[in-house]
Amino acid sequence: MITHEDIRMAAQRIAPYIRTTPVIRLEDSWFDVRGETFLKLESLQVTGSFKPRGAFNRLLSEPIPPAGVIAASGGNHGIAIAYAAQKLGARAEIYVPSLATALKRKMLTELGAQVVVAGNNYVEALAASEARAAETGALNVHAFDNAATVAGQGTIAIELDAQVPDVDTVLVSVGGGGFIGGIAAWFAGRVKVVAVEPTQCPTLNRALLARTPVDVDTGGIAADSLGCRRIGNVPFSVLRSAVSDALLVTDEQIRDAQRVLWEKLRIAAEPGGATAFAALISGAYVRSPGEKVAVVICGGNADPGSFA
Amino acid sequence: MITHEDIRMAAQRIAPYIRTTPVIRLEDSWFDVRGETFLKLESLQVTGSFKPRGAFNRLLSEPIPPAGVIAASGGNHGIAIAYAAQKLGARAEIYVPSLATALKRKMLTELGAQVVVAGNNYVEALAASEARAAETGALNVHAFDNAATVAGQGTIAIELDAQVPDVDTVLVSVGGGGFIGGIAAWFAGRVKVVAVEPTQCPTLNRALLARTPVDVDTGGIAADSLGCRRIGNVPFSVLRSAVSDALLVTDEQIRDAQRVLWEKLRIAAEPGGATAFAALISGAYVRSPGEKVAVVICGGNADPGSFA
Repeated sequence: MITHEDIRMAAQRIAPYIRTTPVIRLEDSWFDVRGETFLKLESLQVTGSFKPRGAFNRLLSEPIPPAGVIAASGGNHGIAIAYAAQKLGARAEIYVPSLATALKRKMLTELGAQVVVAGNNYVEALAASEARAAETGALNVHAFDNAATVAGQGTIAIELDAQVPDVDTVLVSVGGGGFIGGIAAWFAGRVKVVAVEPTQCPTLNRALLARTPVDVDTGGIAADSLGCRRIGNVPFSVLRSAVSDALLVTDEQIRDAQRVLWEKLRIAAEPGGATAFAALISGAYVRSPGEKVAVVICGGNADPGSFA
Repeated sequence: MITHEDIRMAAQRIAPYIRTTPVIRLEDSWFDVRGETFLKLESLQVTGSFKPRGAFNRLLSEPIPPAGVIAASGGNHGIAIAYAAQKLGARAEIYVPSLATALKRKMLTELGAQVVVAGNNYVEALAASEARAAETGALNVHAFDNAATVAGQGTIAIELDAQVPDVDTVLVSVGGGGFIGGIAAWFAGRVKVVAVEPTQCPTLNRALLARTPVDVDTGGIAADSLGCRRIGNVPFSVLRSAVSDALLVTDEQIRDAQRVLWEKLRIAAEPGGATAFAALISGAYVRSPGEKVAVVICGGNADPGSFA
């Protein structure tokens, strides 16, 4: 259970370290159906994704052992942990699967983290990181299945509430569910929270069907940020009732969304960061007339060659 | 003389067509000297630069003849005119010098404008466009030397005033002077307006030295957006007294600023768009302790390969 108080406390804790990210309104003429549309540019967050919100809240919620912190990550979570550890003066070891992009590995190294390539996917990297943490006593920081992490991610919703008053609907992409879990916990039914997943990373869709987190195979262009084998238990405890819809978009629709964000807005989004927007411009999300929609652009760590 | 009333009226006129662009605050730790730092992301404006503000205000201030509009431009001004003409249902012919980037030419064509390559620099393209306008009766829209255009550019300052209350200093890059002229007209001495020019495009520096607009040779990486042979008379009538400093930055400092904007913020800026920021991070602008500084990122129409 993530409460408003948890999220408010998180916002207070992490405030010195994160950016209040800006919102931009799109022209109504973009869409056939009338209604205001806003993009929350979380891709401009420190380290280029929303992840530092949860990372700082977790690391500021419990003591960091002398051995430092460990994380397993295809990229953005690891980068956020490395960044937070650096700011807080702790050691960081990041276990990355081989699918992590070269850009993200480079960012990790530049943040002073020790980078260990372990396994072909997130699950294998996670197992390796857990073994290592047991050995050293370091704090193993899970990417999403932790209440402090989810509460930290939810702080974006406090900003959005102030920036887009009376928003009706928020579209958010889903990997392990920590980000949308935090957002849904804040809005608590007051605002419609719509989940968007790549067809090849359908962790939430499958969990909603099965009514419990289940393993899924993941792949496709957004797998390095959204490819989690199963939705987290902590996020799913919120999402099972708080998400109004879980849509699927194809890799082609995601790539189109990246291109539109670049060509029409000069916004750099990675595939996972453009996934929610893909649901809006592809028509996968059907808006009602007059509906006030916000879309979170949650990551910008892309090689510019991939969207231009 | 550009009055507050001119700029307020312009804001009202252009509101349906332009975006209120967002502001982001940088971490204090970026700088040795304490003080809040804000970036105004005008690179996220429609068409990727501030130019539509002036373009729409000009085209909404006088009748457009049946022959449409003509503009001479190395890029962003022409793109803004083509965009505004398209939105307002008018024909547009854009005269571009051969130095216009391929990206900008492509954008012009996609906006339905007729593109004519004329001459090796802005002055030659301008002469050709003037001859053509005399022939067809089209409205020739100057890039900066016009009161309606300058008042339109000044509308960004109204936004900045609301977004960064009590800002002490605004850093703005300079080409023909229309943008900074509008900003300086709005702030009218209440806020320090600092001009920044590439060393190879020193139109304002030379004009301030000579106490009148004078011809200068221009070149370097920002020339396609800032390379004007001389500062406009209309802007200079404001700038001669309203600008507190006119700094120069090198092409290398501009390139560094582009890289930092991309690597630390995922913001795409073209060279002219990163020029003001270059003054801040290179130390060309020396801030005082506690000074609240805003920097305008005024254009994002870059080939991503150039900043990544």
